[in-house]
Amino acid sequence: MYGAGDVRVVNAPDPTLIHPTDAIVRVTQSCICGSDLWPYRDMAATDEGQSMGHEAVGVVEAVGKEVTKVRVGDTVIMPFAYSDGSCDFCAEGLHTACMHGSFFGYGGLNGAQAEALRIPYADGTLFPLHAKIDKALWPSILSLSDVMGTGHHAAHIARVAPGRTVAVIGDGAVGLCAVIAAKRLGAERIILLGRHPTRTVLGREFGATDIVAERGDEAVSRLMELTAGQGAHSVLECVGTEDSMVSALNIVRAGGAIGRVGVPHYQSIPAGQTFVKNVIVGGGPAPVRAYIEELLPDVLEGRIQPGRVFDRTISLSDAAEGYRAMDRREALKVLIAA
Amino acid sequence: MYGAGDVRVVNAPDPTLIHPTDAIVRVTQSCICGSDLWPYRDMAATDEGQSMGHEAVGVVEAVGKEVTKVRVGDTVIMPFAYSDGSCDFCAEGLHTACMHGSFFGYGGLNGAQAEALRIPYADGTLFPLHAKIDKALWPSILSLSDVMGTGHHAAHIARVAPGRTVAVIGDGAVGLCAVIAAKRLGAERIILLGRHPTRTVLGREFGATDIVAERGDEAVSRLMELTAGQGAHSVLECVGTEDSMVSALNIVRAGGAIGRVGVPHYQSIPAGQTFVKNVIVGGGPAPVRAYIEELLPDVLEGRIQPGRVFDRTISLSDAAEGYRAMDRREALKVLIAA
Repeated sequence: MYGAGDVRVVNAPDPTLIHPTDAIVRVTQSCICGSDLWPYRDMAATDEGQSMGHEAVGVVEAVGKEVTKVRVGDTVIMPFAYSDGSCDFCAEGLHTACMHGSFFGYGGLNGAQAEALRIPYADGTLFPLHAKIDKALWPSILSLSDVMGTGHHAAHIARVAPGRTVAVIGDGAVGLCAVIAAKRLGAERIILLGRHPTRTVLGREFGATDIVAERGDEAVSRLMELTAGQGAHSVLECVGTEDSMVSALNIVRAGGAIGRVGVPHYQSIPAGQTFVKNVIVGGGPAPVRAYIEELLPDVLEGRIQPGRVFDRTISLSDAAEGYRAMDRREALKVLIAA
Repeated sequence: MYGAGDVRVVNAPDPTLIHPTDAIVRVTQSCICGSDLWPYRDMAATDEGQSMGHEAVGVVEAVGKEVTKVRVGDTVIMPFAYSDGSCDFCAEGLHTACMHGSFFGYGGLNGAQAEALRIPYADGTLFPLHAKIDKALWPSILSLSDVMGTGHHAAHIARVAPGRTVAVIGDGAVGLCAVIAAKRLGAERIILLGRHPTRTVLGREFGATDIVAERGDEAVSRLMELTAGQGAHSVLECVGTEDSMVSALNIVRAGGAIGRVGVPHYQSIPAGQTFVKNVIVGGGPAPVRAYIEELLPDVLEGRIQPGRVFDRTISLSDAAEGYRAMDRREALKVLIAA
């Protein structure tokens, strides 16, 4: 990306192993993330450009000499953050706080919207798939690299549990995956706040029991009406704007929890309102690497189908069109197939 | 209280039953709370005055005709909030969000720094003690009406658990009870941030393994040094000032949790810093009514001694002197004995 709205597909040198813990992965599928749309909308023009993309599945082409868990030829999931797999935080399952980790597509590291890329800490980062996987499952496998794990993180932080009333804010791909996660964790009622009928229809298929299409104060009133004036035990904030966070704070039930996974484009959370209501606010970059183990069996056995959020498939050469379509909401989430 | 610094002990009409769910309790012990010092410092002068106090133990003198669980002659703990005991929130143990409840000493309701007071929803509010209790245990029993339950709430919200490193911010009575709570929940390391030696000594006796007497940035540096640069898994914020909250945010470990119980005298919590670190921020008015059942056995069997936070006992007629002594930090927490 060379600036807002300026996506180019360019030839780049083939990635090479730099550290002995690196691997090179040939990307078979990647995709465009809602968070990629922020720079698409407001990035200052640059000559150097920024390599984009942080979600992929692919095949290992080469490994450094200290790589032991991942082998050439392995099919792997590449989570959006790389992580050494051995520090205290990785050991605890918070790979996004890895002491040696960071995010793909930042700090000079290549992004995954590419034919191939270098993976730091391959053993800690990549999740090898040893089973033979049906072609139809690939989009759902790809979703474990970010969007499904992110929806799960929102649900986990917001303490979704059997019997709970859950509100999901946002009918984008993360919000829809959050619906899947809430259903999977046993929520009794799942209220999806979203105003795009093609998306909320999918939300219903994923398990949403109610749709609130109103916005702002009207959405809050409607949700309170649906919950006998109490609000939702768990609010999954999957947008990241000031408005969505205000709604989250207004609809969360006293003693409830808000799981935030939309990258915050607001400055602060009110200290008094959350205190009086004894509300828990948590969330951040999802440690999707840790969640793959939990979510993968449900994908492989067809119990969840997060890959359905991909409603358009393009080739890498059409990346600019993919961004355009997502930005204009013509596509929900775009898959880039090799 | 008739204004900042203006505490008077005045004759008031004897409380009477108003609703059939009321009880009248003769107060045997009450106390002064750190939160009582806020109006003591900044309340505008009034002619009517504000009845003060929200922590008490006492004996039931009269009950309304719909009161069935509490009987005349029962010795009871009076939590700082009254609650109907039957709404959805009370059923879930969040009595401070009771749909019909509120706090003593607010909205025209009398406070507990008195000879007697009316208790709304006596069945839901009061905790009757049917055992005969040794005199030495009374201060600890009294602490269950607020300060010990509040410290426990901070620890509970901040997810204190065996093996965790805990930081307690504040060496006031709540902070010291938070140390007790952290120890009781199995924390491996308890770092108390406080700079009053007489209090931190008690903190050590309660279980603090380290004391950080520095303030502000220096306190943060010291704590990071003590935790190998990672910070504390659980931060128990027991002060409520902007400075204490800034410290809490700076010392919490990625993936950790902050339990806030100091009434917030700051406006907001930074949205980005908490997101990047995947930190959970929670807390509010502690549902101490729910915690009595969990904490009482430990008090009765002497495993915890929160009553040690009371370092001065006065009679009701000396209330003004009690406020003065607490405000000047000559006393940690003042008990008012009938």
